[in-house]
Amino acid sequence: MDVPDSVRASMRQTNALFESEVVRKRDIDALDKVYTTDARILPPGADLIEGRAAIKEFWRQAIASLGVTDASLTTVDAEAAGDTVVEIGRAALTLGEGHTVAVKYVVHWKEEDGAWKWRTDIWNMNQ
Amino acid sequence: MDVPDSVRASMRQTNALFESEVVRKRDIDALDKVYTTDARILPPGADLIEGRAAIKEFWRQAIASLGVTDASLTTVDAEAAGDTVVEIGRAALTLGEGHTVAVKYVVHWKEEDGAWKWRTDIWNMNQ
Repeated sequence: MDVPDSVRASMRQTNALFESEVVRKRDIDALDKVYTTDARILPPGADLIEGRAAIKEFWRQAIASLGVTDASLTTVDAEAAGDTVVEIGRAALTLGEGHTVAVKYVVHWKEEDGAWKWRTDIWNMNQ
Repeated sequence: MDVPDSVRASMRQTNALFESEVVRKRDIDALDKVYTTDARILPPGADLIEGRAAIKEFWRQAIASLGVTDASLTTVDAEAAGDTVVEIGRAALTLGEGHTVAVKYVVHWKEEDGAWKWRTDIWNMNQ
């Protein structure tokens, strides 16, 4: 089912927070506005990580150790599933001074405190 | 929201088909009963693959080239989302004569032709 434009707009705002606040400014606390409290992430090279506090620690270390300087998220497909949304997307991550890595992901979105956030987030690399 | 027991039973049947028919017996056509017609997979090391025919070709090559001899799928969490289900799971893949790889995944399930099938399937490795 189609995702209403108002929901898509809220999703874009959340993704923009990840791009600009979390990655570019390295403001890890901005993840409070990106992930739901009970979120789960499934990163390549690590086990399932549950809860926003643990997720913030993961990103703090990952962004620093990989030297992520930029991120650009693009929705490929989003479909409504009850009062949630399942999204397929692509991410371009810039490491260091300009090496770009192609990432694809699935995010299960939920509304929490009036904003659309990532409840479940899994990704992998194209190469 | 909770997933009804009858749906969980259908999901388990589908996963069992993948384990026994597709992987152990290398019956790639059994994927017709695993993926929806319009399914999408997001494999590590490759781009997004859309449609069951292309997905079958992916698995035909992947199972042969990696020498996958066994697979065991375990649901970690499943929640209803409208008339669909979002599942987090773990997979143990046996390569060759006994090397096991730990995989985790997210599957978005839909009912098609009276059976629960994988509409969206993404995974990555723990190591």
